[in-house]
Amino acid sequence: MTNRITSLFHIQHPIIQAGMVWVSGWKLASAVSNAGALGLIGAGSMKPELLREHLHKIKSATQKSFGVNIPLLRGDIEDLIAVVVEEKVKIIFTSAGHPGRHIDKFKSYGASVVHVVANVKQALKAEEVGCDAVVAEGYEAGGHNGLDEITTLTLVPQIVDAVEIPVIAAGGIADGRGMLAAFALGAEAVQIGTRFAATIESSAHELYKQKIVEAKDGDTLLVYHNLLPVRMIRNPFAKQVQKEESEKGITRGRMMELHAKGRERKGIFEGNWEEGELEMGQSSGLVKEILPAADVVSRLMKEFEDGKKKIASV
Amino acid sequence: MTNRITSLFHIQHPIIQAGMVWVSGWKLASAVSNAGALGLIGAGSMKPELLREHLHKIKSATQKSFGVNIPLLRGDIEDLIAVVVEEKVKIIFTSAGHPGRHIDKFKSYGASVVHVVANVKQALKAEEVGCDAVVAEGYEAGGHNGLDEITTLTLVPQIVDAVEIPVIAAGGIADGRGMLAAFALGAEAVQIGTRFAATIESSAHELYKQKIVEAKDGDTLLVYHNLLPVRMIRNPFAKQVQKEESEKGITRGRMMELHAKGRERKGIFEGNWEEGELEMGQSSGLVKEILPAADVVSRLMKEFEDGKKKIASV
Repeated sequence: MTNRITSLFHIQHPIIQAGMVWVSGWKLASAVSNAGALGLIGAGSMKPELLREHLHKIKSATQKSFGVNIPLLRGDIEDLIAVVVEEKVKIIFTSAGHPGRHIDKFKSYGASVVHVVANVKQALKAEEVGCDAVVAEGYEAGGHNGLDEITTLTLVPQIVDAVEIPVIAAGGIADGRGMLAAFALGAEAVQIGTRFAATIESSAHELYKQKIVEAKDGDTLLVYHNLLPVRMIRNPFAKQVQKEESEKGITRGRMMELHAKGRERKGIFEGNWEEGELEMGQSSGLVKEILPAADVVSRLMKEFEDGKKKIASV
Repeated sequence: MTNRITSLFHIQHPIIQAGMVWVSGWKLASAVSNAGALGLIGAGSMKPELLREHLHKIKSATQKSFGVNIPLLRGDIEDLIAVVVEEKVKIIFTSAGHPGRHIDKFKSYGASVVHVVANVKQALKAEEVGCDAVVAEGYEAGGHNGLDEITTLTLVPQIVDAVEIPVIAAGGIADGRGMLAAFALGAEAVQIGTRFAATIESSAHELYKQKIVEAKDGDTLLVYHNLLPVRMIRNPFAKQVQKEESEKGITRGRMMELHAKGRERKGIFEGNWEEGELEMGQSSGLVKEILPAADVVSRLMKEFEDGKKKIASV
């Protein structure tokens, strides 16, 4: 398959593995890239020098395209970007914040820049400042989420209609059916997080991977509505936050206290079921086993191709 | 096109117009049915004798299949059901409540019964009590909504995997792209509300229809989380409720006070922008004009067929 996204990234399959904190280091990203899709290192949970280490390792582990996801709201964002620029990473996915403030640094050495957006306005802005593509991420996605709560099904076609640059659909996609649905909506690739978080090569704790596999349809929830929404599994910590939020509301100060540094690490990397934030998307209900990342890529493509044939005969 | 849903309802196109309070009387439902899709009378806003009047009128207005949507939680549900049974309505869509308590009354004269569900458990239950199909309705849908906040993109395939009966996708679908996406996920028909609410034949107030057309991607919101969630446009009333909910939480008693009888009528039927509940889905961002219902049906089918061809060549 060839389209604007596969050409932009020089990849075989229009599948991008989301850059996820505590989940996607060089190991997962290189496994996905070696399978013909695009692996992303999630820099969100890495200090600048650790990111450099992962970049060195991934360069040894794959000859294919890979990228880095950078959450722009980090305090040490300049140091993190300096590493990416020094290492001349060719594909940058930015999330949160304003890509316009940093895009020139990446463009100066010819990198492609993709921004993650959650509404039409952000997509138009990303296009205006020169991004090569956008990820349209819906309400069902795991982890940090948009304030508008727009779902992938309604977000993707509205962004496709609004911008000229290619659109990558994210949120709620875990199999070839979801991938085909995204293409039906006009997307030219999909970004998949949760499904890849539950792979052999994912750096996450085994308990966290197991919880993805066990999750049923209604097992995730969103907290910190109207502040800094985050989707996670309904564990004791999440239930406590939801209760507090629905009974008396949560202020920004209280949120900072609850969502303190270490909460994601505790949940995802250390497997602390009681107290951690185990961020995952609603697509967890569709994930049934822990596979090697390459198998996930090949199954997605097979299901996608089968689905295309099936829908042609509807 | 022929599949289990078109055969069940004896319709040409796998499109169902949602039964909507203050919107879908005999006029809209017959227009949709005459166009080869399935029109539903929304009994939710009708007293039993008014429903009987609409049933008499629709029988004169169309020779084709039509149905009635009945919200089972109504206080006078027995009287409402008595009218439906006396009039021998052949297609019943039930929402909220437990269809098992009433299904025998409909089955006794050979009607088809479809229940609207928002999670896998409800779908299994509907199948178990003998429903002929389920509507899998996601978080993006307008009006009353499930507690689990599961989006259409993740809900539909999980329900398709769980039940044997056919699945109708609802929530977030307003054009042929969304319809094709629903089929990619395994649905055999779509139920569409908001797009039909903004048609010439809709009984809603002109202001309400215009607000659907003007709505942008992030213009609806959900209130009464964890109680009785309702999606509506972000008007002064909705913003006031959202503010109260996020700042101090809303109890069941307070919700009953806010969502009092008359609020939906005020918003949808009387066009009161300040104080009404103007219920609509996230798909309102995709609705660009007020058309005759038959044109909506033919455009949906054309876009769906065009999309099928396009995706086959991806």
